[in-house]
Amino acid sequence: MANDKKLVEAITSMDVDFAQWYTDVVKKAELCDYSSVKGCMIIKPAGYAIWEQIQTQLDAEFKKTGVENVYMPMFIPESLLQKEKDHVEGFAPEVAWVTHGGLEPLQERMCVRPTSETLFCDFYANEIQSYRDLPKVYNQWCSVVRWEKTTRPFLRSREFLWQEGHTAHATAEDAEARTIQMLNVYADFLRDVLAIPVVKGQKTEKEKFAGAEATYTIEALMHDGKALQSGTSHNFGDGFAKAFGIQYTDKENKLQYVHQTSWGMTTRLIGAIIMVHGDDSGLKLPPKVAPVQITIVPIQQKKEGVLDKAYELRDRLSNFRVKVDDTDKSPGWKFSECEMRGVPFRIEIGPKDIENNKCVFVRRDTREKIEVSLDEVETKAAELLDTIQKDMYEAALAHQKAHTYAATTWDEFCNIIETKPGFVKAMWCGDQACEDKIKETLAATSRCMPFEQECLSEKCVCCGNSAKKMVYWGRAY
Amino acid sequence: MANDKKLVEAITSMDVDFAQWYTDVVKKAELCDYSSVKGCMIIKPAGYAIWEQIQTQLDAEFKKTGVENVYMPMFIPESLLQKEKDHVEGFAPEVAWVTHGGLEPLQERMCVRPTSETLFCDFYANEIQSYRDLPKVYNQWCSVVRWEKTTRPFLRSREFLWQEGHTAHATAEDAEARTIQMLNVYADFLRDVLAIPVVKGQKTEKEKFAGAEATYTIEALMHDGKALQSGTSHNFGDGFAKAFGIQYTDKENKLQYVHQTSWGMTTRLIGAIIMVHGDDSGLKLPPKVAPVQITIVPIQQKKEGVLDKAYELRDRLSNFRVKVDDTDKSPGWKFSECEMRGVPFRIEIGPKDIENNKCVFVRRDTREKIEVSLDEVETKAAELLDTIQKDMYEAALAHQKAHTYAATTWDEFCNIIETKPGFVKAMWCGDQACEDKIKETLAATSRCMPFEQECLSEKCVCCGNSAKKMVYWGRAY
Repeated sequence: MANDKKLVEAITSMDVDFAQWYTDVVKKAELCDYSSVKGCMIIKPAGYAIWEQIQTQLDAEFKKTGVENVYMPMFIPESLLQKEKDHVEGFAPEVAWVTHGGLEPLQERMCVRPTSETLFCDFYANEIQSYRDLPKVYNQWCSVVRWEKTTRPFLRSREFLWQEGHTAHATAEDAEARTIQMLNVYADFLRDVLAIPVVKGQKTEKEKFAGAEATYTIEALMHDGKALQSGTSHNFGDGFAKAFGIQYTDKENKLQYVHQTSWGMTTRLIGAIIMVHGDDSGLKLPPKVAPVQITIVPIQQKKEGVLDKAYELRDRLSNFRVKVDDTDKSPGWKFSECEMRGVPFRIEIGPKDIENNKCVFVRRDTREKIEVSLDEVETKAAELLDTIQKDMYEAALAHQKAHTYAATTWDEFCNIIETKPGFVKAMWCGDQACEDKIKETLAATSRCMPFEQECLSEKCVCCGNSAKKMVYWGRAY
Repeated sequence: MANDKKLVEAITSMDVDFAQWYTDVVKKAELCDYSSVKGCMIIKPAGYAIWEQIQTQLDAEFKKTGVENVYMPMFIPESLLQKEKDHVEGFAPEVAWVTHGGLEPLQERMCVRPTSETLFCDFYANEIQSYRDLPKVYNQWCSVVRWEKTTRPFLRSREFLWQEGHTAHATAEDAEARTIQMLNVYADFLRDVLAIPVVKGQKTEKEKFAGAEATYTIEALMHDGKALQSGTSHNFGDGFAKAFGIQYTDKENKLQYVHQTSWGMTTRLIGAIIMVHGDDSGLKLPPKVAPVQITIVPIQQKKEGVLDKAYELRDRLSNFRVKVDDTDKSPGWKFSECEMRGVPFRIEIGPKDIENNKCVFVRRDTREKIEVSLDEVETKAAELLDTIQKDMYEAALAHQKAHTYAATTWDEFCNIIETKPGFVKAMWCGDQACEDKIKETLAATSRCMPFEQECLSEKCVCCGNSAKKMVYWGRAY
C-alpha cells in the first residue's frame, strides 16, 4: 500500500530538528508541495481547505466592520510604483518584472504586485472627490509576489496568498481608528479561531512598512520560541495622498488630503497554526479552522452493521465538518492519518461499542479517550469541540507565558536570547543604533512596542541611556 | 449632490447603440472601472459582490461532485509551457513574460499563467503513481493573463478572474464522463442561478481548445442577438499525459497513461448577466445572484416611525440579502439607483402605508407594483423572489427562442446572419473550409454542434456537400 507508507515513516522529532519537523509535517499532512517554479509553492487540498476556512471566517468579520471587496490588476506600471519614495525603495529590489506582452516588448515595464498601495491610490485619486465619498474601506483577496532569496513553505515564498485592505478617510483620527480596529480584528481572529495568543503593539521606525507613518503588528510565539509576525496594520497618514494627489472637498468646500491605512494577513497563518499547535504526530488543528472536525473510524468495518452505524453517526453529526474513513486501510493507519492531519477528534465505533450503545471519542490534543453513549453524540461532540478549542488556546497561552522573559541588563538580555528561546521584554532608548547592535550581535529583532507597556527599569538594556519604551525582542521567522 | 448626478444622466438606449449601452451600465452600476494598466480592469464592490455570489454558489456545486480546491503558482517556466505542442502554439502569442526577479535577470523567462494545464500536468506527473491515486479532481480560483489587443469590461480583458478545474482519470470513459458532468454543472448553474438558458454542444476542430481532443461549450444569446461562449469543458484524452509523462500502475501492475480534463468559467459571466437581462434603466439581477435582493426605500423618512418601520422590516427579512436606503437622497433617486443596480425588487413604505398596515413591492423586471400587508412580508418576499427568478429565466428563454433561426440555403443563411441577429441553425459538411468561408464572408462562427441534433436538410449550407452535423452559427463576443 504505497499511499500508507508515506505516513508510517515517523517524522523528525521537533526537539531534534524543529525546521525539519516543520518540513515533514507540511509534506506528510499534504499541505503543500514544491513546484517547478523555484520558491513558489503548490497549496494542496488539505492546505487550501485551511485557507478557505480562514478566508471565509475572516472575510465575514471584515464585512461586519463595513469592508467591501474589490479586485485590482496584478500589474503595476513602473512609473506608478515609483510615486511614493519610501515605498518604491522598500519593494523595488524584490519584485518580478514583466517586460513583454505577447510577442511585443512593453513600452513601460510592469511589476507583478508585491502589495497594492499604489494601485489603490491611483484608483482613489479618481474615485474620491467629496467628503461624501469617504470613507472607502476596500479589501482584496489575491496573491502577491516578492522575489525572496530564501523560501520556506507558507512562511516565506515568492508568491503567497493574502488579503490586503486599503482604506481612505477624511481625518487622521478616522484613519488611526481603522488601523487599530483591523489590528483588533486580526488579534481576535487568532485568539478565537486559530487558538493563538498574540502580543499587540507598534513596530519601531526601523521595522515599519515602507511608506507608513505607523505600523501595528500582532506577534505570535512558535513552539520553538521564535516569533512570527502574524498580521500588520499600517497608518499612512496623508503621505500617499500627497504623492498621488488624493483630495476631497470637505463640508466647507475646502480641498483636503485623505488619510489612509492598509492591513494584511497571509497564508503564513497556516505556518503559525502548524508551529504553535503541532507535535511529533503531526498537525493539530483548532476545531474552528479544521476543514474536517471529526473523523469517524469504523472498527471491524466488514462486520454487519458497523459501516451503517458509522454513516448514521455522520448524518447525525452533519452540523459539523465530519467524515467517515471507510477506506480499506487498517484502523491503526487511520488513527495515524487523523493525527497527522490534525483532525480535532476521531470517533471509534466497532461491533462491541454498538452492542453497548456507545462509541469512543479520542481527542487529538490530549489523546484522551472518552466513552460516549450513542444517544448523546450530538451534544457531546459540540461540547468536546468547544473544549478542545479552549484548551488549545490555553495551552498556547501557557507556552507563550512560560517563554516570555524580562531582562534589565545587557548580560541578562544576551544570556536569555542565546539560551532561552522566546520573547524577551526589555527597555529601549528609542535609538536605532541599539536595535542594529542587538540584531548584529544576537540575530534578534524588535518585535513590537506592546500596547501594554511596563516599566522594567529606567535604562535602555543596550546602551544604558534613558529608556523610552518597553519592547518585545526575539528571534523571528 | 455630485454622487447623484452620475445616475440622472440617462444612459444610452440599447436599441440605439448596444455597445455604448453596455459600457454605460458597467460604469453607472459601478461594476468596474478602467485602470492605469491598459486592458486590465478594476472590479468595484458592486461588481465583485456578484462574482462572490457566483464563486460561492458554483464552488458549492463543484464540491458536491467531489472537487477539491488547490492553488498553483501564477508563473510558468517557458520550457514547461512548451511541452505540449498545440498548447504552446495556442497560448504563446498572447502571454505576458517575466524576465527579471528583483534586480537580476532570470535564467529562464516565465509567463504569467494564461491557463494552468502545464502546471497541473507537471504536478500530476509527480503526484500520481498508482490507480489508487486516481481520480484527481482539483480546481483553483485565480486570475489569468492573456495579452489581448482589444478589450472590453468583463468580456475580454488582459487579466480576468476565473476558476479552472483540472482532472486526471484512469480511463478515457471516466475523463469523458467528468467533462460532460462539469458542462452540465455549468449549464444548470446558468439556468438555475443566473436565469440564462444555454445551448450545450461540442466545438468544431477549428474552435476547440489548444491541446484538447474535444471541447464542449455552453453558448448563451445576448439581448442584441450576439452569442457569448459562457463556459467550456475540455477532454484532453491522454495527449498531455504523454507529453508530461503522467502514468500510473493499474491493478494488473501495468503502466498506463492518465486521461485528463479541464473546465473553466470566468468573470465574463457578469457580462452575460448584464447583456441577457439588462434594459435601458440598467442592470437586472436574478434574485439568486443579486448581492442585494431587496432594497427598502422609506418614503417621507423624516416623519416619525417611518425609518423605524423600515429597519423593522429589514430585520424581519434578514433571511434575504436586504438593505435599507436611509440616505438623504430623494425617493425618486433611490428608485433609479435600485433600478440601475438591478435590485430584484424594492419595498416602498411611507406614513400612509404604515397607517394602512401595508407596503408596496415594486418588481425590477416587470415594474409591477404589488400591495402587501405588513403581516405577510416574509412569505410574500420569498414568493416574489422565486417568481422573479423564474420569470427572468422564461423571458430570456423566450428571447433566445425568438432569435434562433434555421437556414437550409446559402442565401437564406446569409440573409439571416446579416439581418436577424441571433443563432442560426444550419447543416455542415464537417469541412473547415466552409467554417472559414462563413467567418470571412459573414463574420459569423460556429458556436457549437449541439447535443440535440436535428436534420434540417441533407446538405451543407455552405458548399452543398453531404451534411454531417447541425451547427449553431452566429456572431459572437
